[in-house]
Amino acid sequence: MKNNNLLFTPGPLNTSTTVKEAMLRDLGSRDYVFIETVKEIRTRLLALGGVSKDQGYECVIMQGSGTFGIESVLSGVIPQNGKLLLLINGAYGNRMLKIAQRHSISHVALECAENEIPDKHEIENYLRSDASITHVAMVHCETTTGIMNPIDEVGKLCNTYHKIFIVDAMSSFGGVDFTIPQAHIDYLVSSSNKCLEGVPGFSFTLANRAHLEQTKGRSRSLSLDLYAQWQGLEINGQFRFTPPTHALLAFYKALTELENEGGIKARVERYRQNYELLMSAMVKLGFEPYVHEKLRGHIITAFLYPSGDYFDFEMFYSMLNQKGFTIYPGKLSRVDCFRIGNIGQIYEKDIRSLLEAIAAVINEMIQKITV
Amino acid sequence: MKNNNLLFTPGPLNTSTTVKEAMLRDLGSRDYVFIETVKEIRTRLLALGGVSKDQGYECVIMQGSGTFGIESVLSGVIPQNGKLLLLINGAYGNRMLKIAQRHSISHVALECAENEIPDKHEIENYLRSDASITHVAMVHCETTTGIMNPIDEVGKLCNTYHKIFIVDAMSSFGGVDFTIPQAHIDYLVSSSNKCLEGVPGFSFTLANRAHLEQTKGRSRSLSLDLYAQWQGLEINGQFRFTPPTHALLAFYKALTELENEGGIKARVERYRQNYELLMSAMVKLGFEPYVHEKLRGHIITAFLYPSGDYFDFEMFYSMLNQKGFTIYPGKLSRVDCFRIGNIGQIYEKDIRSLLEAIAAVINEMIQKITV
Repeated sequence: MKNNNLLFTPGPLNTSTTVKEAMLRDLGSRDYVFIETVKEIRTRLLALGGVSKDQGYECVIMQGSGTFGIESVLSGVIPQNGKLLLLINGAYGNRMLKIAQRHSISHVALECAENEIPDKHEIENYLRSDASITHVAMVHCETTTGIMNPIDEVGKLCNTYHKIFIVDAMSSFGGVDFTIPQAHIDYLVSSSNKCLEGVPGFSFTLANRAHLEQTKGRSRSLSLDLYAQWQGLEINGQFRFTPPTHALLAFYKALTELENEGGIKARVERYRQNYELLMSAMVKLGFEPYVHEKLRGHIITAFLYPSGDYFDFEMFYSMLNQKGFTIYPGKLSRVDCFRIGNIGQIYEKDIRSLLEAIAAVINEMIQKITV
Repeated sequence: MKNNNLLFTPGPLNTSTTVKEAMLRDLGSRDYVFIETVKEIRTRLLALGGVSKDQGYECVIMQGSGTFGIESVLSGVIPQNGKLLLLINGAYGNRMLKIAQRHSISHVALECAENEIPDKHEIENYLRSDASITHVAMVHCETTTGIMNPIDEVGKLCNTYHKIFIVDAMSSFGGVDFTIPQAHIDYLVSSSNKCLEGVPGFSFTLANRAHLEQTKGRSRSLSLDLYAQWQGLEINGQFRFTPPTHALLAFYKALTELENEGGIKARVERYRQNYELLMSAMVKLGFEPYVHEKLRGHIITAFLYPSGDYFDFEMFYSMLNQKGFTIYPGKLSRVDCFRIGNIGQIYEKDIRSLLEAIAAVINEMIQKITV
């Protein structure tokens, strides 16, 4: 059915029927049940990051998409006299650069190719030689390519050089096995509609309280004021401005279903199996992944367009779409590619159906050109 | 049932079951069906404002709550050398002031008491004497009190003095009979979860294209960049950043149900009847509205706390809550009041049930004190 396609995208994703059914309810935003739900969500998110309030961390939920969350951090925590080191190897790193530019945040960008990870020694040189750098920001899983950036190594450097470490963990949090303390993360941003398998509507930041407490009055925006949002949630459990109540109810259900699945480790395992099945079959079908194996994540994979004349991406996309499968276009600056995600309510049987459809579509396309 | 209270609030509101059921579906944000849905929503919203693309107006949807939409306009359309005249008589007018301050937007604020409307002659004096004023902003229905501000008169002045008129129509659009041309509005902002009876998750701006076209590069924010958001939606029908797909599907259904109800005029009539029934009974019960009759709207009403010793708002609120009715606390700076909204899926029978519950709770409270 065209109208209920399986989504092999970086999100919005397929969510469970029960997650969606949790939205069949209108709660007032000051309702006691709603306030308790939000409180519980914030506690559980910290636990998923391997931290807690007692250990000095806080969870701040922000209305809007993941980018709204990233902007709430960059424009909310870096002081006027601060300086940001941006590590960039894809569209989402570049988006952080745009945010820094828009807010006239002093910054330096270290950019490498989209299929490479930034050089550790080069990063260290920046940190050692430029004492004015106060914050470092990096994307964990660059959804542009699916590459996994070495947040552990960068976090260690930030810790050594006393820099505040901001991580865009949009498409990794909940789907990759890591913790906040292990990667020395001070601000982690992710969203409702990625590996935690909720519906879109908000992002959240897991923050080191000792740093967050210093940020009062720093925000360049009212809506995206991270500190004020945190204080609002702390003081009476309420959002300053209308929250997406239904998306939050769905998210609470999604967190329960994550627990029932066996937590992050079990989910990582499912995603990894999806990825391995997909990858081995795609290689057999002649597709070449853009990123080298040792840098690839298991969240989303960028495949180069095949070299044959028969291949036309728009046709490929639309024929798959008609068969009930939604894949994702590329977002690379220099190379033509498309992307397939393994996250959301996607299981082995779904990957197998997708692979069958891809094989059939490729055959049809080849036949069109040979006839 | 405590868990499914009737909401007599300014939103989130009670929505129909069918509106919520429209969310039982995951669509990709680049999906053809989704893109068509968004396009149709934008067209219908313009029509509800009494305008169209052909007449030179545009609809821009923005993720987040209503305040995000207001900030996207104030921080996105007023140039560095512009100046904003703010007309304030409540919390939402003051919120616009906070946004102007946060973005260092040059402004002058004309504030009057919360139960009064700004003086027409005073506004005209400002516009006549200060040529540097470029924009005027006003809340239509101030949800703080329910007062209806005279946007028609102010719009006429803006037209005469060539000022760009920004209206916060959050809780009036769809529930009050007015049009954009009639009030000379250049930017109207409203939200998904008010009188159009969708679920929370986004706001929208109906904009005069001739002005909107001038605003490229003016936005102080990336996420809230009104012009870029408009261009994104125009160029390929897609959002720049992940949209709340489920909330948009619900909204599309809500717009269809508004049509089926008979459009805005029929909805205004239902809300007005809700209001009149509520008001006459509340006055009989001894409650006094805060705003004079001739300034009151029919969207939400602020009632003063009764003077008797028996009355305790927390108890009143919580007893009503236990009986299945959610009312709203006050938000006035100087006077104690509570608020009751008439909007959303609320009908005569619901108002009657609420009134019975209020009478019962008042009786219980009085008995407690006399026993």
